[in-house]
Amino acid sequence: MAGSMLQPGPQPPSAATDSLIEALAEVRRFIDPRLEELVAASDDVPPRLREAMRYALLAPGKRLRPALALWAAEACGSSWEAAAACAAAVEMIHAYSLVHDDLPAMDDDDLRRGRPTCHRAFDEATAILCGDALQPLAFQTLASGLPPEIAGVGCGILARAAGGGGLVGGQADDLAAEGGAVSGSPEARLEALERIHRRKTGALFSASLALGGLAGGGNAQFSAAIERYGRAFGLAFQIADDLLDAEGTQEAMGKRVGKDADRGKLTFPVVLGIDESRRRARRLADEAAEACGGLGGRGEKLAALAHWIVHRSH
Amino acid sequence: MAGSMLQPGPQPPSAATDSLIEALAEVRRFIDPRLEELVAASDDVPPRLREAMRYALLAPGKRLRPALALWAAEACGSSWEAAAACAAAVEMIHAYSLVHDDLPAMDDDDLRRGRPTCHRAFDEATAILCGDALQPLAFQTLASGLPPEIAGVGCGILARAAGGGGLVGGQADDLAAEGGAVSGSPEARLEALERIHRRKTGALFSASLALGGLAGGGNAQFSAAIERYGRAFGLAFQIADDLLDAEGTQEAMGKRVGKDADRGKLTFPVVLGIDESRRRARRLADEAAEACGGLGGRGEKLAALAHWIVHRSH
Repeated sequence: MAGSMLQPGPQPPSAATDSLIEALAEVRRFIDPRLEELVAASDDVPPRLREAMRYALLAPGKRLRPALALWAAEACGSSWEAAAACAAAVEMIHAYSLVHDDLPAMDDDDLRRGRPTCHRAFDEATAILCGDALQPLAFQTLASGLPPEIAGVGCGILARAAGGGGLVGGQADDLAAEGGAVSGSPEARLEALERIHRRKTGALFSASLALGGLAGGGNAQFSAAIERYGRAFGLAFQIADDLLDAEGTQEAMGKRVGKDADRGKLTFPVVLGIDESRRRARRLADEAAEACGGLGGRGEKLAALAHWIVHRSH
Repeated sequence: MAGSMLQPGPQPPSAATDSLIEALAEVRRFIDPRLEELVAASDDVPPRLREAMRYALLAPGKRLRPALALWAAEACGSSWEAAAACAAAVEMIHAYSLVHDDLPAMDDDDLRRGRPTCHRAFDEATAILCGDALQPLAFQTLASGLPPEIAGVGCGILARAAGGGGLVGGQADDLAAEGGAVSGSPEARLEALERIHRRKTGALFSASLALGGLAGGGNAQFSAAIERYGRAFGLAFQIADDLLDAEGTQEAMGKRVGKDADRGKLTFPVVLGIDESRRRARRLADEAAEACGGLGGRGEKLAALAHWIVHRSH
């Protein structure tokens, strides 16, 4: 199962994949030192708590959300620097949510990105507090990193995505859906599934793009295109993620796989079957790439990312 | 042990106590319907999660932090309405922190404000998510409730107080100090104790005052006075709280008492003794009341609150 988990099907040319992987590495080289600095500079944090925050935030990862923020700013013709605070803030929210999702009372995972989860590496209380501290650090980063006239708007965008109607609501739904709590016709289950993921992953992806656009000074046409992109990208990502869980190897994924099925969790492969899930992910990636047409020729990386996301192996 | 837990010593005239209690009730009547609305209006939150948020946020309580925000705005000559978002936001942060502090991996409490704690009334996962959702709701409330030109500054003030250098750092320190991890001379232990509480309770009290001042348009003289008040008030509150835990009854407190001693927790009565703790709390209340002299004659309620806080029985 090396290579793509979403085979068979047309593969993107490997040159495009290589260049997308290099583009993501570039995002990582840009954002990681800033994340490091922001954790180090947050004043007067007890050492063990700070260590846990650093552990969670600088874990190996794809930095997808920073990439969306930076590339959205770039698509507006702005610099990465202008959107650096946005990119850092969305990664902080993402990192905190992983720490809390992994807790024993939640998904109870021991392994994340190939390393012990935060509560295994530290302890449960520290993991709870680590998440609780990363969340305000995200808002502090936006409040002090965006120009004053848009800082409040930025905090509002992030807060809505991170809240009970976004990320947290999605996790609550997801837990409730375990063990087959969501039943009914395939259409009803599909709708429930899409609603979960619009909140759980879609909201923060969309906020990453919106914040990048805010920092980059995007106009209304930009906003419409980026919103369309975000919706399709988020769903494509989640279907691909479910497929990886169903088919991936633990080695490639760096976390326990097959756990969705173990829990009788509602997933796209369960509702749609493997083949239809693959087709749908590809169709959504095409739709996302198409939306990039509205970005005035500067949406290439975003388009490539949408294709890559459904062809990745981890 | 009915009446004051901080006897013996001069008591404030009971007319002043009655009027302060009425003033706090007025704050409650002002803020509770707004909290109710804000939870109800937060869009698209799964029903059980929303119910938990409501349960935590609208629990019986003194609404001290909203009072500080509203009375600080009032002391600037401004209306409560101008500071309503600030008052709601600080109560949301306070409510979330209680939910997480009570979790099994943290203080493991079954009772809070006379009712089952959130994870007992719902379940542990819901309690974690409830806290995680109340936190961004606070920032969303500020971002949309403050005038755009100060919304970012407001979010920054709240984020610093809520973060690893504030509330969360204080809880981390507090857990670390359990079982006598902080040793050394009485002076060293006192210093450690004051540092814990400056973060754990002091930071959010100060932020409540600062946000009220921001919304109310307070000038530099106001800020200096309010900062001095906040420092003294926060410490006075914490010493009084420790005394209540050492001496109060479960019935009056609505939560388990004597638990600090059970855990060998570092408290003011342990370090200073009961009598010296009482003297110090009163001295700090006097200092806080004195600082209100710099508020141009509009700091009466804040001064009365500082005295009441060290004479309350629950």
